[in-house]
Amino acid sequence: MSEVESITARRGGARAARRAARAAPLPDNLRPVMPGMTGGRYKPLLEADVVKIHRAALDVLEQIGLADAPPSGIEYMTRAGAQLTPQGRLLFPRSLVEDTLARAGRHFVLHGQDPKHDLEPWGSRVYFGTAGAAVHIVNAKTGEYRDSTTQDLYNIARVVDTLDHLHFYQRSVVCRELVEPLEMDVNTAYACVSGTTKHVGTSWVRPEHLEASLEMLHLIAGGEEQWRARPFVSQSNCFVVPPLKFAYDACLCLETAVRGGMPVLLLSAGQAGATAPAALATALVQEVAECLAGLVYVNAIKPGAPAIFGTWCFVSDLRTGAMSGGSPEQALLSAASAQLSHYYDLTGGTASGMSDAKLPDIQSGYEKAYNHALVGNAGVNLIYESAGMLASLLGFSMESLLIDNDIIGAVQRTIKGIDVSDESLSLETIRKVCLEGPGHFLGADQTLQRMQKEYVYPSVGDRSSPNEWVVQGRPGIVERAVRKLDTILADHYPTHIPDAVDEAIRARLPIRLPREAMRRPVKT
Amino acid sequence: MSEVESITARRGGARAARRAARAAPLPDNLRPVMPGMTGGRYKPLLEADVVKIHRAALDVLEQIGLADAPPSGIEYMTRAGAQLTPQGRLLFPRSLVEDTLARAGRHFVLHGQDPKHDLEPWGSRVYFGTAGAAVHIVNAKTGEYRDSTTQDLYNIARVVDTLDHLHFYQRSVVCRELVEPLEMDVNTAYACVSGTTKHVGTSWVRPEHLEASLEMLHLIAGGEEQWRARPFVSQSNCFVVPPLKFAYDACLCLETAVRGGMPVLLLSAGQAGATAPAALATALVQEVAECLAGLVYVNAIKPGAPAIFGTWCFVSDLRTGAMSGGSPEQALLSAASAQLSHYYDLTGGTASGMSDAKLPDIQSGYEKAYNHALVGNAGVNLIYESAGMLASLLGFSMESLLIDNDIIGAVQRTIKGIDVSDESLSLETIRKVCLEGPGHFLGADQTLQRMQKEYVYPSVGDRSSPNEWVVQGRPGIVERAVRKLDTILADHYPTHIPDAVDEAIRARLPIRLPREAMRRPVKT
Repeated sequence: MSEVESITARRGGARAARRAARAAPLPDNLRPVMPGMTGGRYKPLLEADVVKIHRAALDVLEQIGLADAPPSGIEYMTRAGAQLTPQGRLLFPRSLVEDTLARAGRHFVLHGQDPKHDLEPWGSRVYFGTAGAAVHIVNAKTGEYRDSTTQDLYNIARVVDTLDHLHFYQRSVVCRELVEPLEMDVNTAYACVSGTTKHVGTSWVRPEHLEASLEMLHLIAGGEEQWRARPFVSQSNCFVVPPLKFAYDACLCLETAVRGGMPVLLLSAGQAGATAPAALATALVQEVAECLAGLVYVNAIKPGAPAIFGTWCFVSDLRTGAMSGGSPEQALLSAASAQLSHYYDLTGGTASGMSDAKLPDIQSGYEKAYNHALVGNAGVNLIYESAGMLASLLGFSMESLLIDNDIIGAVQRTIKGIDVSDESLSLETIRKVCLEGPGHFLGADQTLQRMQKEYVYPSVGDRSSPNEWVVQGRPGIVERAVRKLDTILADHYPTHIPDAVDEAIRARLPIRLPREAMRRPVKT
Repeated sequence: MSEVESITARRGGARAARRAARAAPLPDNLRPVMPGMTGGRYKPLLEADVVKIHRAALDVLEQIGLADAPPSGIEYMTRAGAQLTPQGRLLFPRSLVEDTLARAGRHFVLHGQDPKHDLEPWGSRVYFGTAGAAVHIVNAKTGEYRDSTTQDLYNIARVVDTLDHLHFYQRSVVCRELVEPLEMDVNTAYACVSGTTKHVGTSWVRPEHLEASLEMLHLIAGGEEQWRARPFVSQSNCFVVPPLKFAYDACLCLETAVRGGMPVLLLSAGQAGATAPAALATALVQEVAECLAGLVYVNAIKPGAPAIFGTWCFVSDLRTGAMSGGSPEQALLSAASAQLSHYYDLTGGTASGMSDAKLPDIQSGYEKAYNHALVGNAGVNLIYESAGMLASLLGFSMESLLIDNDIIGAVQRTIKGIDVSDESLSLETIRKVCLEGPGHFLGADQTLQRMQKEYVYPSVGDRSSPNEWVVQGRPGIVERAVRKLDTILADHYPTHIPDAVDEAIRARLPIRLPREAMRRPVKT
């Protein structure tokens, strides 16, 4: 064997070994990324600034307070120690907020219907999921925006159910064809929990709709007790209309959720420059004040009830007043919110991955990616809106959902960081390659070990060379996503809810999604 | 006036004031972002890990060393204290490296031909620029890849000259139509320095070519002394062929540059998994060892000579061995390199913004953006390859150049961070709006003050609503970039090099770019 042949054979052998290694399924401890990677290496705020924002929020609560609480809320919160002003604002003494923080629910699991999807969103662990509520489905090929439907919501759930890097499913689109509010709320919850066994988030406009939905959730869980032991749905609750006003109906839904054992996302969605101050730091102060008020409310109903600190501070394009979800200011606000929830040791949730682009184009890619990279590395526990969203939350693209899953996979890899262990720092590999070896690391033992544990690979992203790409006919990433999407939609019909339970639900509630839309079509 | 009319009038007035404020040119102290924002809020490595990597690099230099130095290099480095082994490897005792680090050049300005473009790349200040060397120009509309030319190189320089967020111009494409190496090197330098007054970087394959180019640079500067006082071109020098071998001709070019007063980018471009170890930490060790060897070399020629610590560790897709410039592992390696140059208090340069995508599509956007967000926030002083590059450095797109400028502007905004001053934390704005005011912040004084200083706006990115976008005919971001590009190319012909100097250069050197290609065409 000539030297060249020998090198070729050795390299060929290495390549075959790499191929075989890639083909084998990876045990969890060898996967390059997993749900709940630990972030926190990016800190947009100095520690002292975090404290300043906290103190200013306490001042806001004590001096300005919140207006428009419903009578039941006033009752709960004044009994806990809040003071009602003659103008009808609730003021929150510093001691009340501090006591609330001391006894608030912490380190609670967000359950999936399947326990393998349980989330442990505390510390600096990071989970990515969807949210909404888009009113349009975007056709990524034509640019057409059409009204979203219950079927879309269910289909998106099915796709999310298959995607490695989406860890929970909050309802992504509005069932626009349902005009009756009860029907919309119930069917929204139904489509989500039927489409995935991952943890679900959704919202309700009236407490009666939530009561009706809880009946369904009890049926799925196998009883109220089982539901309360492992609540697999949380309520996304916009309990506040920034600046500093309670939202009447949302507050009633909040009370019902807390009493019903459902975790609550305390979502304050001020928009800096419009409904929140334009100065980013002051906008954070207002957000924090509002979420702390929500926390007082929840704990006044039931001490220690699970609540997510949902500082979702949005951003205005100040030239027009319109929302800019993809802006760098958004990345800063969402990332900074991580530091505030860490400061309180509360489960923090915020938004990232919103784009102002109308299509899954380069703008969509870069806006999502710089937001995810910074918000993820800041260590936000629950990152909502992370996949599929376009046009500052107005549109949802199924193709984008798949592509964004790749973005999140890559960002999770950055959160994992660099392993600087004695093993990874072994100089023996360098010594062998340079002094004895082939002069390159392609076939080194370490390379084979590391290729799965340290390297993440895209699912629809493409790394072929220009020549290979031309030979393939210059396929676009959207086309690749469409093909993959079609396969998932044709194949993946979750069956975790038994037919008998589904029939019981349909007997009690006005479910509008036809059974036949939830089963693989019989081929004729 | 009804209440509605009054609100409308007030909001209209606010909008007019905002429009007027936007139209006025911004003084530098009010611009939301400027060249050299201070990064460092993202730290992928623990401090202890940085020290581990440093110590391992010292071990590599002392125990494994580098092969293949040219005789002149062996002479320089052994005289400084390196030891030549019988196998021809140079070993670097720990004390030699430490002495070199103690006296190495620090805090040197990288000059522009126009002093307004001078860079101060030290501490955690961050500057973005181009690099290369792509061999293709990509037509973003058709996907066509064609050979790049000297005219392209000059045109790209002209465009970079106009872009706010690109702070230096390293030669981006190869002049493929020039086959004679001297012609290629000289014309590359000429096209760059003629097209922009920003700091230029380029490379040479033979020292004679650099000598010839220095003649040109002296002419432009007004003499050798003036050149040495403000060298406005640095040499991108791949002095090492990883793993741990010196590159013969590049070393001779390095020596010529140092003697000629030209700053040197000590560029070690190992590729993890191929020419560098697959374990990211070990790859960093090798990079650092190689760049420290280069630093010894430079300082052995001329103590304190300006050298950039160029840890450009690339990444392999381990399934194929091909480079993956857009991978998350790339972001980690480039960001980590910031911490190492900070540790040494050296000017650090690395690569970010390389994409594996073949077009300015969503993959290109997300790969560039998560890399830039993390590498920029890590505080790398000089970020090369930051705009225009596609297909893992094989292709350059002019449209992407303009779009990437927007990405960098946004990332600079994130680097600037959140102002948590007493002024920004004033609760008076919240109090007024909630207790007295209109219930929103759209027209608040603070909003108008902040809209320029705290908010950055895209140049080709689009934030219109889906409805507005449909009315506009669904324009794509690439189309918007093409229109803007056409305007710049038609209008911007730099004239900073006087005709007499240009003639003197052409009299001495084989300049191939026709004069008429460098002047605005006369309209007939």
